[in-house]
Amino acid sequence: MISNKLEMSMLCDIYGSLLTDKQRDALEMYCNEDYSLSEIAEHTGISRQGVRDQIKHAENELVMYEKILGLREKYSNMAALLMKLAKAPEIKQNKELSQIVSEIQNQLNLD
Amino acid sequence: MISNKLEMSMLCDIYGSLLTDKQRDALEMYCNEDYSLSEIAEHTGISRQGVRDQIKHAENELVMYEKILGLREKYSNMAALLMKLAKAPEIKQNKELSQIVSEIQNQLNLD
Repeated sequence: MISNKLEMSMLCDIYGSLLTDKQRDALEMYCNEDYSLSEIAEHTGISRQGVRDQIKHAENELVMYEKILGLREKYSNMAALLMKLAKAPEIKQNKELSQIVSEIQNQLNLD
Repeated sequence: MISNKLEMSMLCDIYGSLLTDKQRDALEMYCNEDYSLSEIAEHTGISRQGVRDQIKHAENELVMYEKILGLREKYSNMAALLMKLAKAPEIKQNKELSQIVSEIQNQLNLD
């Protein structure tokens, strides 16, 4: 159903708080914990088709938010640039600068 | 009506694409170009009260998105940390590293 669970999981990290609790829970079970639709149905007391609709709807919303706001792409670019900084000897050898780079990297992690 | 036009303008930079075109246009005229409600009304052919409602509604939406996603706060923190990096002599004296920091700063500008 979802072509790329990893991609969807990343979009959910960014925009998940804009979904309903039920949508987010179902999507996380499906993408992060690798439950099957039937297992999620059993777990949540919704029909398998209901779970399928819920996840599909959530997926569509996440893709729509990414289309409008493009944060996933922006964060990927920033993460790649921050990684370059973190690896530069001038920064690796300087505890204070390493710490700052690491703090910025933490801001990009959206837990 | 809007207590802090600068704050609202920054929220509009981040979440403005989630508003309708009309909402965003009215808010930008009000916050960025400092038009009065009457001037916006004249410009757009909507009543002054209509413009007021549009802006108030847009403001509420932006505040709601910030409450849910918190990107304004996150970006402020990152901008402050990036400024520290940009000012560090080890980075200022290194063209390549300065360039990377500058690229990350550009990613934070949401034009």
